[in-house]
Amino acid sequence: TINSARLLSRLQELGRIGLDNDNIRTRLAATDEDKAGRDQLISWIKEAGLEVEIDRIGNIFGIWTTEENKYEKPIMLGSHIDTVINAGMYDGCYGVLSGLEVIKTLQEKRFKPARPIAVAAFTNEEGVRYQPDMMGSLVYAGGLSVEDALNSIGTDGTVLGKELERIGYAGSKEPGFIKPHAYIELHIEQGPILDKEGTPIGAVENLQGISWQRITITGVANHAGTTPTEMRHDAGLAAARVITYLRNRANASNGQTVATVGTICFEPNAVNVVPALATFTVDLRNPNEERLQQEEEALANYLKELAAVEEVTISTEQLVRFSPVTFDEKIVNVIEEAASKQGLPSKRMTSGAGHDAQMIARICPTAMIFVPSVDGISHNPKEYTKDTDLVAGANVLLNVVSNLTGI
Amino acid sequence: TINSARLLSRLQELGRIGLDNDNIRTRLAATDEDKAGRDQLISWIKEAGLEVEIDRIGNIFGIWTTEENKYEKPIMLGSHIDTVINAGMYDGCYGVLSGLEVIKTLQEKRFKPARPIAVAAFTNEEGVRYQPDMMGSLVYAGGLSVEDALNSIGTDGTVLGKELERIGYAGSKEPGFIKPHAYIELHIEQGPILDKEGTPIGAVENLQGISWQRITITGVANHAGTTPTEMRHDAGLAAARVITYLRNRANASNGQTVATVGTICFEPNAVNVVPALATFTVDLRNPNEERLQQEEEALANYLKELAAVEEVTISTEQLVRFSPVTFDEKIVNVIEEAASKQGLPSKRMTSGAGHDAQMIARICPTAMIFVPSVDGISHNPKEYTKDTDLVAGANVLLNVVSNLTGI
Ligand SMILES: NC(=O)NCCC(=O)O
Ligand SMILES: NC(=O)NCCC(=O)O
Repeated sequence: TINSARLLSRLQELGRIGLDNDNIRTRLAATDEDKAGRDQLISWIKEAGLEVEIDRIGNIFGIWTTEENKYEKPIMLGSHIDTVINAGMYDGCYGVLSGLEVIKTLQEKRFKPARPIAVAAFTNEEGVRYQPDMMGSLVYAGGLSVEDALNSIGTDGTVLGKELERIGYAGSKEPGFIKPHAYIELHIEQGPILDKEGTPIGAVENLQGISWQRITITGVANHAGTTPTEMRHDAGLAAARVITYLRNRANASNGQTVATVGTICFEPNAVNVVPALATFTVDLRNPNEERLQQEEEALANYLKELAAVEEVTISTEQLVRFSPVTFDEKIVNVIEEAASKQGLPSKRMTSGAGHDAQMIARICPTAMIFVPSVDGISHNPKEYTKDTDLVAGANVLLNVVSNLTGI
Repeated sequence: TINSARLLSRLQELGRIGLDNDNIRTRLAATDEDKAGRDQLISWIKEAGLEVEIDRIGNIFGIWTTEENKYEKPIMLGSHIDTVINAGMYDGCYGVLSGLEVIKTLQEKRFKPARPIAVAAFTNEEGVRYQPDMMGSLVYAGGLSVEDALNSIGTDGTVLGKELERIGYAGSKEPGFIKPHAYIELHIEQGPILDKEGTPIGAVENLQGISWQRITITGVANHAGTTPTEMRHDAGLAAARVITYLRNRANASNGQTVATVGTICFEPNAVNVVPALATFTVDLRNPNEERLQQEEEALANYLKELAAVEEVTISTEQLVRFSPVTFDEKIVNVIEEAASKQGLPSKRMTSGAGHDAQMIARICPTAMIFVPSVDGISHNPKEYTKDTDLVAGANVLLNVVSNLTGI
């Protein structure tokens, strides 16, 4: 079993990096706070005697091997260490530090794995500062060119490539230089299912598709007191109709579709002016690609009808689009068996959130292990997973790695 | 008749003040742009040889008199020169500049009116930066204390009293120092009725009640991908339900109630986070006090039900509440007669918008004259009234003033 004290204290230590004076934790990709987190991670990777490599998009790798052919077919473990704004301390960090802990445990027990083992921390998984999210792993898997990614303009107007250079993490390795035999990502669930059912381990067999759009509705600004209702072209009312429409679709989907309007803005945004413009985002998800497309088409048709009825014009822009991913059945089985061997109940489940595993699944057999999030809270400083669950998850990961490396 | 070239060119000139590089006109109360507009107005008032007075809330008065007892019982004409964001050039300015034009015309014809005539430009009629709207005239009529008004905090965090001092318009006169014999406000209709019917003059006999509330809905921030629909406490969805509810009420009111949600804001306002907070404003109007109260009660009941159904908490804050106002029957008759004498069809009507006249009606006989707004557009740079209609309205005002001052 892993050294639980070491894993838990490192999680706390990494979690303190990026706290501001009000104890709010924010380590956005390629910021000074991210650099401090990366420096800490690298010092632990070096302390374990692993070879450190950084690729052009800033992904960090620690490789444990005595082989010549070290980049061929290692087992890769990992996740990310960047965070959202006002974040918890588990999202991402738990998977990276558990990967390193598994390697250290195997080293200390003087196991000699049949294949190399690598731990990875992918750049900009959260997508808060630069879009799309899961960017480092997407580039690594060949889904986005390094150049396009490095040219990304951040919400703060910065250029990712310049920021990576500035913090000293613009590496020289070509993304994809390690060809994994398998990738396993241990993560907090970030949802309520395992916690509600009291199941300690999730064997994640798939990950739902994600579609992000920005919708812009243009109506006509007019006086709130003098404009008869039937003469209004109210962009805000039309936006409200889209929000309730999306909730109706989610309700009618038998728990399959989730839809969120998380951002909105009216113009001119004055109490007594009918909104001329409403801009908002839609986050649509469904585990089934066909159904996700049906949702997108239904929304597009609804917007057409709505534009006619409310006499407004509507345009949409796709911000992010990832198809659902099915993970490797064999690895999912291995995860279930590992849990069962340790006397831990497990549950096959779908990931509601996007993860680096979703991208790496394009280049090698991949699966994920989930542990419970208390009350399903994440992307929130109240994000919390019990120590016993964190340790159990890391031990399942150790067991899965042992199995896959033929120890 | 008035000097139409002078009136129209001054309207254009004042309309250029506060234009930004993109030709967007914004002169919010007590900003640098408002100061520039006020300075221009004062130079015209001085050029007409009027006595300039400024009261503690920044209302500007130009008084034409040779009497000793100059503050007693003048005919007061006026409106405001502050604007909304991205405004047209007629709203308010037309009434102030026409008042001044009427005085200049009477001076030039060497008429000697039987009582003083004053022109007024009231502070912060629009209520965009500081609330409530019609603030200067409300304070002038004794409906709000000067101190409370000066302590108003703006949407930009500024304090009105400090801003008036900064721009040099914190006067020393006590609001109410002039006791008008009557107040007449000439204004664009800002609605579609006169334009649609082709009627050049509105004799405004009443003004509908106005209720502004800020509604704050508190839900729970959570992950957009992992949180099942039925476990969400989505503040943004609840806000959308209020917006569509209000439209249903307006539709069911037989053209009596109008309801507008003009501002909205979500927190944390991130694509993949369920909104924890939605803040928005409601502008509710009805010409009948009892019906307006019924709308307010119906909304309050709906919010209670909604809080229970969506499992969110909802709080409301009243920002503005003005009862409907009935104008002075005699002055309305004088307006109708003046129009008729000039061969202009007129129509008795209700004002949908709030106006300074609504406040001044508390202290003296008051009425309003409306001219058509093309397509009913206002609070929008497309706001437009034909020159012939502008001139006709100002001539009706001249005739009404002549009648009331016994010329
Ligand atoms: N794991 C995670 O929170 N990723 C962010 C991408 C998403 O919105 O699902
Ligand atoms: N006339 C005018 O636009 N006043 C603003 C107050 C209102 O909202 O009616």
